[in-house]
Amino acid sequence: MTKRAVIVGAGFGGLHAARVLANREIDVLLIDRNNYHTFTPLLYQVATCGLEASEIAHPVRPVFRGAGNISFLLAEVTSIDTAGQVITVRMSDGDDREREEQYDYLILAAGSVTNFFGNEQVKANSFELKSLDDSLALRNHILRLFERAVWTQDSDARQALTTVVVVGAGATGLETAGALYELYAKVFQREFAGLTPRIVLVEATDKVLAPYPEELRSAAREQLESLGVEVRLGAPVVEAASNYVVLKDGSKIGTHTLIWAAGVKASPLADMLGVKLERGGRVRIKPTTEVEGLERVYVVGDMAYLEDAHGQPYPMMIPVAKQQGVLAAENILRDLKGWQPHEFRYIDRGIMATIGRSRAVAYIFNRIKLRGYLAWIAWLTLHLIALLGFHNRLAVFLHWVWNYFTFDRSVRVILGDQPEKAPTMQVEA
Amino acid sequence: MTKRAVIVGAGFGGLHAARVLANREIDVLLIDRNNYHTFTPLLYQVATCGLEASEIAHPVRPVFRGAGNISFLLAEVTSIDTAGQVITVRMSDGDDREREEQYDYLILAAGSVTNFFGNEQVKANSFELKSLDDSLALRNHILRLFERAVWTQDSDARQALTTVVVVGAGATGLETAGALYELYAKVFQREFAGLTPRIVLVEATDKVLAPYPEELRSAAREQLESLGVEVRLGAPVVEAASNYVVLKDGSKIGTHTLIWAAGVKASPLADMLGVKLERGGRVRIKPTTEVEGLERVYVVGDMAYLEDAHGQPYPMMIPVAKQQGVLAAENILRDLKGWQPHEFRYIDRGIMATIGRSRAVAYIFNRIKLRGYLAWIAWLTLHLIALLGFHNRLAVFLHWVWNYFTFDRSVRVILGDQPEKAPTMQVEA
Repeated sequence: MTKRAVIVGAGFGGLHAARVLANREIDVLLIDRNNYHTFTPLLYQVATCGLEASEIAHPVRPVFRGAGNISFLLAEVTSIDTAGQVITVRMSDGDDREREEQYDYLILAAGSVTNFFGNEQVKANSFELKSLDDSLALRNHILRLFERAVWTQDSDARQALTTVVVVGAGATGLETAGALYELYAKVFQREFAGLTPRIVLVEATDKVLAPYPEELRSAAREQLESLGVEVRLGAPVVEAASNYVVLKDGSKIGTHTLIWAAGVKASPLADMLGVKLERGGRVRIKPTTEVEGLERVYVVGDMAYLEDAHGQPYPMMIPVAKQQGVLAAENILRDLKGWQPHEFRYIDRGIMATIGRSRAVAYIFNRIKLRGYLAWIAWLTLHLIALLGFHNRLAVFLHWVWNYFTFDRSVRVILGDQPEKAPTMQVEA
Repeated sequence: MTKRAVIVGAGFGGLHAARVLANREIDVLLIDRNNYHTFTPLLYQVATCGLEASEIAHPVRPVFRGAGNISFLLAEVTSIDTAGQVITVRMSDGDDREREEQYDYLILAAGSVTNFFGNEQVKANSFELKSLDDSLALRNHILRLFERAVWTQDSDARQALTTVVVVGAGATGLETAGALYELYAKVFQREFAGLTPRIVLVEATDKVLAPYPEELRSAAREQLESLGVEVRLGAPVVEAASNYVVLKDGSKIGTHTLIWAAGVKASPLADMLGVKLERGGRVRIKPTTEVEGLERVYVVGDMAYLEDAHGQPYPMMIPVAKQQGVLAAENILRDLKGWQPHEFRYIDRGIMATIGRSRAVAYIFNRIKLRGYLAWIAWLTLHLIALLGFHNRLAVFLHWVWNYFTFDRSVRVILGDQPEKAPTMQVEA
C-alpha cells in the first residue's frame, strides 16, 4: 500500500519538501493555515507600501497542479500523536471542525514566531513582521497615524504619531527602519505638510548585523545613519506603552509604533512532540533531519536544532530551511527503498541586507564583501530570482523599477478590518 | 477672506469637483472615510481574484500634491447643520474623536449603498460589491469555500459550497457572474479535483441589462449562457438563508454565496439635509446641482435626483457623477465671481458591460451597437484609460494580458481578519 507523508507548513522548508515528493510513489498531505506561501524576506516592503500583498504571497495549489499525489489542507495543527502516527487539525476554511490525519512519515516545517522573551508588556504594545497579516496591520496603522498627525495641534503628540521605534538591529530591523525612512522622507513629506518623521533603531547589544564581518557592520550603520535613521546601540527596551517606549538609559521616546524585530523562537508546534526542546524552543534533530528518539518524524528549518561542525546551531534562515526540507523528503524516499539516509551538509551562499535605495551590504560565500550600490543590485537580483512564480517576479520587478525612478509608493490603501494591535491608543491632549 | 468649500466623498463626483477647485482662490476640505478613491467598476475583478486591491484604489493625497489649497480629512460625516453651515465628522484614523468643520460651500458626493429594499433576511445573508472591503470579504469567502468543499464528502453539501447565486442582471451582476464562472472553469478546476461549480444569475424582471436595446440584451444573455452561467429571469428571491436561496417559483438552490447586485440607493447622508427625498433616497437638485431650497449646498452623482428633458432621472452612473461634480465646482467658482451658474447638460458617451474573456456588449453614443470581441476590446480600452494614475493602469494592463494568455488568476490569497458576512454557515452533514 502507498505510504503517506504529512507535511506541516508551506513555508520554505515544507514547500521544498513537497516539491521533492511530487509525482513520486507516495501520498502527500501538505497542511498550512494559509492558502499561500509567504516570501517572508519582503514582508517589510508590504508594511511600508512598497509591494502589494499578493506580490509576496504565492497560492499553494498552483505549485502542485501537475502533481496528483499531493493534497492541500487549509488547517492548523492542534495535536500530534507520534505513537499513533496521527495528527489532529482544526480547519481554517471558515468552519472550525477538527479532522484527524494518519501518517507514515511526518515533516514538521512550521517555522518560527516572534520572541518577546516573556515580556508581555512589550508584546501587547508591539507590531510584528512575521506574516502577511502582520504587515497589513502595520501598514494600516502607519497610514492612519499620519492622517491623524496632520490634524493634531499639539507638537509633542504630533511627533509621537510620526515616530517609529524599531527594536532589533538584525537584517529585518535594518531593512524595516530603512524602508520606513524612505517612505516618510520621499513620499509622505510631499503629502503631509509640516510633519517630521523620526525613525529610531534600538538594539540591546552593541552591534548592528551581528553575523557580518566588522567592516560591513560599520558600513551598514553608516548607510543607515546617512539615510536619516537614528541608531541606538546597547539600548534595551525596559518599558513599553501605547504611546511611548523607555530605554535602559532612562530616555523616553514618544511613539505609537513599536516594531519588534529583536528575535524569533520555534513555532509552538514543537511543544506537541513531547521531546525536550533546545534554546529558542527548537527541536533537536539528527543530521538526517529526523527527530532524536522519534521514528519517521522529521523537523526542518527554524523549528529544528542541529549543530554544525563547530558546535554552532545552524541559523534560522531560509537557505537552511530549504535545504533541510529537500533532505527530509529525499530521506523519506530513500527510506521507502530501504536505503540509508543522507546527512545534512549546508551550502552557505552568504548573507545580505538592504538598507534602502542603493544602500545594502552583502557577505557572499563567507568571502566577498559588498556594500552600497553593488550590494543593493546583488540583493535585488537575488530576491527577484528567489520569488516564486514568474508573474509575481515580473510584477515585483516593475513595482521596484517604478519606485526607483519616481520615489513613489503606490500601495497605500488602508484596508478595513485589519486588527489594530493597540486599539486604545490615545493622543496626548 | 478666502471662502471654504467642503466636499464629502472622494468618489468620482467629489474627486472631479476637487480637481476643478485645485489651485483656485478657495480653501477646499475633501473628506472621505477611506484614504483612497475606488475605481468601482472593477470591484468584481478584485472579488474574483483578477486584480489586486491597490490596482483599483488610488490614494487621494497624491492626486492633490501640487494643490496647496486642498486638505484631506479621513473621517465620516455624522451630522450636517445647513443653517449654521457646519458639518460634524468622526475621525476614521483609529481615533474616534469628533470634529466640526465650517463651510461656505458644501458639495455632497457620498454616492450610493446597496438597496435590499427593506429585506433584512436577504441583507443578513448577502455579499455586496460596493466597496473594496466588500470585494475582499467576498474573495476570502469564495476561496475558503473551495478549500472546504474539496474536503466535504456529502455531495449536496459540496455542491452548495461551490454554487453562487448572483441576484440582479444589470451590468454588475452580469460582470460578476461571468468573471466567477471563468475563475471556476479556467482556474479552480485545475486545482480542486472533483468539484463542479455552478453560477446562477437570477433577476426579478424579465430582462438582462434593461437599459440596452433588445438585440444587445439577447446577445448578452447568449454570451452569458454560452459561457456556462445559468440565467433565471422573472425569478425574484423570496427567501434567503446561510446555505440556500428560494426563488418565487418555489425552486430552492443550495448555496453559501448570495451576491446581491439588484439595486442601489443614495447614501444615508442624504437624510441629514432635512429635505424631502425622491425615489431611492435621492436629493432633488436644481439643474445647477444646488439643492432645492438650500443655499450653496450642492449634491452630485448617485445621491442627486435630477430629471432630463424627457422627465427621466439621470441614471446612477459614473459619467453623470463626474460631470455633475465638475459642474458643482465650476458653479462655486462662478458664484465667487458673482456670475450666474451654469445648468447641467449630460454628455452621454454610452454604456458597456463585459461578460468575460472576449465577451461583452457596448452601446455607444446611443447609436453604435457592439458585441463579442470588439465590444470587449472597447471595454478594456475604456477602462484602462479611465483608471486613475499611470502606475495602476500599467499594472492592471499587465495583469489582464497575463490573465488572458495564461487563463490564470494570481491574486488568490486569503487575507486574515476580513469579516465573514455569514459567520454561522454550516455544512449540511
